[in-house]
Amino acid sequence: MSRRDLVLGVLGGGQLARMLAQAASPLGIRTVALDPAEGGCAADVAMTRQAAWDDWEALQAFAEQVDAVTFDFENVPAATARWLAERVPVYPPPAALEVAQDRLSEKTLFRACGLPTPEFRAIGSKDDLIAAVNGIGLPAILKTRRLGYDGKGQFRLRETADLEAAWDALGAQADTVGLILEAFVPFERELSVIAVRDRQGGFRCWPLTRNWHVDGVLSLSLAPAPQVDTALMAEAMGHARTLAERLQYVGVFALELFVRDGQLLGNEMAPRVHNSGHWTIEGAVTSQFENHVRAVLGLPLGLTTARGQAAMFNWIGEMPDRGAALAVPDLHWHDYGKSARAGRKVGHATICAAEPAVLAARLEQAAQWLQREAQAEPAVSLLREA
Amino acid sequence: MSRRDLVLGVLGGGQLARMLAQAASPLGIRTVALDPAEGGCAADVAMTRQAAWDDWEALQAFAEQVDAVTFDFENVPAATARWLAERVPVYPPPAALEVAQDRLSEKTLFRACGLPTPEFRAIGSKDDLIAAVNGIGLPAILKTRRLGYDGKGQFRLRETADLEAAWDALGAQADTVGLILEAFVPFERELSVIAVRDRQGGFRCWPLTRNWHVDGVLSLSLAPAPQVDTALMAEAMGHARTLAERLQYVGVFALELFVRDGQLLGNEMAPRVHNSGHWTIEGAVTSQFENHVRAVLGLPLGLTTARGQAAMFNWIGEMPDRGAALAVPDLHWHDYGKSARAGRKVGHATICAAEPAVLAARLEQAAQWLQREAQAEPAVSLLREA
Repeated sequence: MSRRDLVLGVLGGGQLARMLAQAASPLGIRTVALDPAEGGCAADVAMTRQAAWDDWEALQAFAEQVDAVTFDFENVPAATARWLAERVPVYPPPAALEVAQDRLSEKTLFRACGLPTPEFRAIGSKDDLIAAVNGIGLPAILKTRRLGYDGKGQFRLRETADLEAAWDALGAQADTVGLILEAFVPFERELSVIAVRDRQGGFRCWPLTRNWHVDGVLSLSLAPAPQVDTALMAEAMGHARTLAERLQYVGVFALELFVRDGQLLGNEMAPRVHNSGHWTIEGAVTSQFENHVRAVLGLPLGLTTARGQAAMFNWIGEMPDRGAALAVPDLHWHDYGKSARAGRKVGHATICAAEPAVLAARLEQAAQWLQREAQAEPAVSLLREA
Repeated sequence: MSRRDLVLGVLGGGQLARMLAQAASPLGIRTVALDPAEGGCAADVAMTRQAAWDDWEALQAFAEQVDAVTFDFENVPAATARWLAERVPVYPPPAALEVAQDRLSEKTLFRACGLPTPEFRAIGSKDDLIAAVNGIGLPAILKTRRLGYDGKGQFRLRETADLEAAWDALGAQADTVGLILEAFVPFERELSVIAVRDRQGGFRCWPLTRNWHVDGVLSLSLAPAPQVDTALMAEAMGHARTLAERLQYVGVFALELFVRDGQLLGNEMAPRVHNSGHWTIEGAVTSQFENHVRAVLGLPLGLTTARGQAAMFNWIGEMPDRGAALAVPDLHWHDYGKSARAGRKVGHATICAAEPAVLAARLEQAAQWLQREAQAEPAVSLLREA
């Protein structure tokens, strides 16, 4: 090759690395995904290296091969991120990653930045838990501070009698990853802000996304989120910007919000491309994946404007029938190339339309053909109202 | 893997195979590109096999690995295509490929289907050439019947004195690939129809594309082509459909047309995804690459509707500055990962906008930042008139 191509390093080799590599490839940027596990689904479209997070020799070779390093998932050990950052640009910065890795630091930061959160308490012992339940009230959720995702490492307390069971389930982790008790918020809506900040401080948000979770896992997204007034939108985006600037963040992140009585509450921040931003691949001028690649490698950001209306279904456990799906107009299929397994994210589909009524009709058609009526229903109802 | 993934085989490993693989990957379809040459640019995103077109052992292994075979370029030997078609579905069908490989058969078919063409004569000897020049008149172009592309294997005759030089340049090929003399048509516009036909006979066209060539190589495309009335559009698409049905075609093809005095003339048919359809990646609901993959593997076709206005620049010889390009709003970059070489297609960029005036402004901005003003000028002028 007569010119030096850019190479992106990704820690983790799952579907986010896969979609980053798919976005990088047309830009002439190659991707190397490093993962301790074998057979991640990024391997179909990226170079891969298998190595432990503390295999310094392999990490050295990886650092020499790439122009910048980023993350497929946020639970890469902080020591690994910091070690790499001494050798090659690492984005988001390890310090930002560490805040987002810890629910206690994260919620403390939210409050420091003026974003209210549900009540919470750090839990170091069973006595702490008893005191926190008395202070916060029930229902509440006991969560691990670190290493949780998609509803894992969580126990919901409905009544005082659940306290023992909660402690039995998670108490042993108080001394390892730490615990936090959070008040359960009976929210009306879940929204997320997908945002990106570049190396020079340039900041852009995609339109807000409305999300529905089932059993703690994202099931359905709709964007731009209907029925959001300009003030709420500006407030949500303002919080995202404040957080990004405070953390000197570089790359894409998601800020998950609850809306209760018309007020925003900060739920969590995911320091990476995010499931609720998958609709941007076809539904926005530039996808979250492409803008993350651009930001991390110091290239200019692309427009984050929506092209119309979009809805995303997550496929959990197994893929529905591809042939039926592809007959739906403006449906875009994403099969991560994983084998089926209960609870596993194996793919998604995004359906687009210029108008809400057309999107509702396409969603209903897709849901019927794929036998996913219940999954589609919340978005269909909302689009019919709009 | 617990389920059987589809695998697409592609003969040829250049940028078209690369973009087919990029479109196939989100569908959960893996791509294997077979090429006699080493180091084709598809290798970044697809599995590759290096083998000669008559290495039957390698072709057997390839046939066993894939669910269907298609083409990255049309000059694969007919014997190879026919041999594979006895073992695995091959689309487009080898018979259709053979017609499109031969300018004489192709133009004869155009006329049989009611599509006028410039005057032409088969040339077997220098005497034939003299007679044909007398019959057709000058200017005219002597071309090889087979194995020509991007203006290669062509000699333009302006006056009778050029006859000797033309014969010296190409005469030796009369007995190998054959020769044809075509009248030079002083056309007003070049249009192409990008169309797709599926295994069940379903047929779709993308909006017409307006093209500008420089030195026989595509330089710029604009879609949907401005200033095309409905009757001309319907006629062009009707010709594409008639040809596809006559050839029992499956997959994407391009029909290149001249417009002279408001009338359509058939120039050539490319039996594959085509450079003048690259704008469909971002400019249409479903790209030519994705619909080709779908058609060839027996999946339903996607919508071919345009999302707005799009213009495509071809990058010949070397890539312009990526950083400058990516700062243009709604510009989409395609670097094929090739090294620079004079005359080589190394990448393209598509710029989109909802309105012609906005596209004109973005094109001008891109052209200025990339120092490609002359290349952009024909589209900018036309969009300003619209």
